[in-house]
Amino acid sequence: MDGTSHEAGSTPLVVALGGNTLLGEHGPWTFDEQLAVVERTARQLSAAIRAGYDVVLTHGNGPQVGNLLLQQERAPETPSAPLDVLVAETQAQIGYLLQQALDNELAKPPDFFTMVTQVVVDGDDPAFQSPTKPVGPFYTEAQAAEKSFETRRVSTGDRPYRRVVPSPDPVELVEAAEIANLVEQGNLVIAAGGGGIPVVRDDALRGVEAVVDKDETAALLASDLGAETLLVLTDVEFAYVNYGDADQRPLRTVTPDEGRRHLAAGEFGEGSMQPKMEACCRFVDQGGERAVVTSPDHLLAALEGTTGTQVRA
Amino acid sequence: MDGTSHEAGSTPLVVALGGNTLLGEHGPWTFDEQLAVVERTARQLSAAIRAGYDVVLTHGNGPQVGNLLLQQERAPETPSAPLDVLVAETQAQIGYLLQQALDNELAKPPDFFTMVTQVVVDGDDPAFQSPTKPVGPFYTEAQAAEKSFETRRVSTGDRPYRRVVPSPDPVELVEAAEIANLVEQGNLVIAAGGGGIPVVRDDALRGVEAVVDKDETAALLASDLGAETLLVLTDVEFAYVNYGDADQRPLRTVTPDEGRRHLAAGEFGEGSMQPKMEACCRFVDQGGERAVVTSPDHLLAALEGTTGTQVRA
Repeated sequence: MDGTSHEAGSTPLVVALGGNTLLGEHGPWTFDEQLAVVERTARQLSAAIRAGYDVVLTHGNGPQVGNLLLQQERAPETPSAPLDVLVAETQAQIGYLLQQALDNELAKPPDFFTMVTQVVVDGDDPAFQSPTKPVGPFYTEAQAAEKSFETRRVSTGDRPYRRVVPSPDPVELVEAAEIANLVEQGNLVIAAGGGGIPVVRDDALRGVEAVVDKDETAALLASDLGAETLLVLTDVEFAYVNYGDADQRPLRTVTPDEGRRHLAAGEFGEGSMQPKMEACCRFVDQGGERAVVTSPDHLLAALEGTTGTQVRA
Repeated sequence: MDGTSHEAGSTPLVVALGGNTLLGEHGPWTFDEQLAVVERTARQLSAAIRAGYDVVLTHGNGPQVGNLLLQQERAPETPSAPLDVLVAETQAQIGYLLQQALDNELAKPPDFFTMVTQVVVDGDDPAFQSPTKPVGPFYTEAQAAEKSFETRRVSTGDRPYRRVVPSPDPVELVEAAEIANLVEQGNLVIAAGGGGIPVVRDDALRGVEAVVDKDETAALLASDLGAETLLVLTDVEFAYVNYGDADQRPLRTVTPDEGRRHLAAGEFGEGSMQPKMEACCRFVDQGGERAVVTSPDHLLAALEGTTGTQVRA
């Protein structure tokens, strides 16, 4: 790597941006506050690009898709789009802000660009039998009872109910060949945001009301691209055991087997570090050289191997 | 052209889809009704693709961006995104549905894919001094007076006010080189939807609260790609003179000069046929071989030159 620009044919680095790298850690947020967080993340990412990494970006979308669900619920006279369409919208919403902020940081071509990406899931995935992923606004018990979709009590207080949707495993990125082709030619791509737009493939492609875990999709994208490294960015420098306790201990280098033992022991927060470590273990198991969990502040050091949780075979 | 598939290096056909090709002619629409219209349009477009044309698609987004404006206004506790971000969202919303419907029609690779596209406008464009383009919901006079944005009385009745925004000319597609590169390699691309995401370029790219006419942007895209033909699809087979009168007469073949004389005479509906004919004349003036206005039903015949309004030098 020549330290100034990416090169066609070199090995890409897939970076998965967690929610806090796009929204900050404390809500509620105005749009301008969100933009400032995206710009800070873009500055941190551009350091990796300048260091010569061929970055392919993907990102979460939980709060954003939740806002779209709430917004359209409030305007019943407008067409109510299913969840796959809303996920698509968040791909462009977030992708646009990232590509603009990165273009501004990098100042010259190469440009980043965002591809709307569908992800095939299996219609027989057991997740469809037991929706578990909460999305969108909170409801009172009476409101929840009136909804045409499945809701579940997920918290306490006046509005403890939320819609729950299936979270099936990602099987195939519909646009995988195009993404690989673009990356091979040295383009900087943002793809498969929000875990990808969930579709099933029977005699045709068809959107489904589901959300796919963005870290799982990031691992699939990284495998498809033959990436050496999957970098998962979140709000902590490491994955920890005994997290939050006095004896918490950062994980520095782990094998997938060690990672899975910690997963089985319930060391990682459900819906936060757990899916990240699962995706990292899966990526390395499927032939990836390494997967790294760290925060954007430690991005370059983690790529050099001196910090972050490094998952290696 | 071999009649079965597009080929790398051949000349693209840029197709601009008007609102009625995405939503039908009569509202309000449910989401499923919209999807059925998109699928019908995809069937009609796939005939051109099977006939060997390298199609690059672009599309309008007026009703869709209006719905997003209304939806977010109803949920003031969520971040209110500026218009550039909402245009981005509609690019993925519509692009996703089109790419899926086209993939289903064409059954095999090549896949269509959607690129989030920014369009640079001139910050000194006089349009910024006099916003004229109505967007989003209708308001009472009292509601309009409370808004932080500019509104104007645009109709009669109880709610005659709407937000008005500038509609500056498109100057440059930020992702033009990437789009051209993709098309040259034989990819089927959906780009610059909704006229493109409006940005200005000073020391950096920055979104602006504006909308760019989708037909103008389609002409720019077609020029950038060196397209032979710009095809503008709408709800009528021809542009007409004396439209709606007993002596209405379809325009069959016109030069840009003739087209502009009809434009100057006010023959074409403002905001409907007028911008389409302006874009067609501009494209041919700037070296395009021809621009065609017709309806999706007449797409192939119009490409063969036997129907539709054909603008040629």
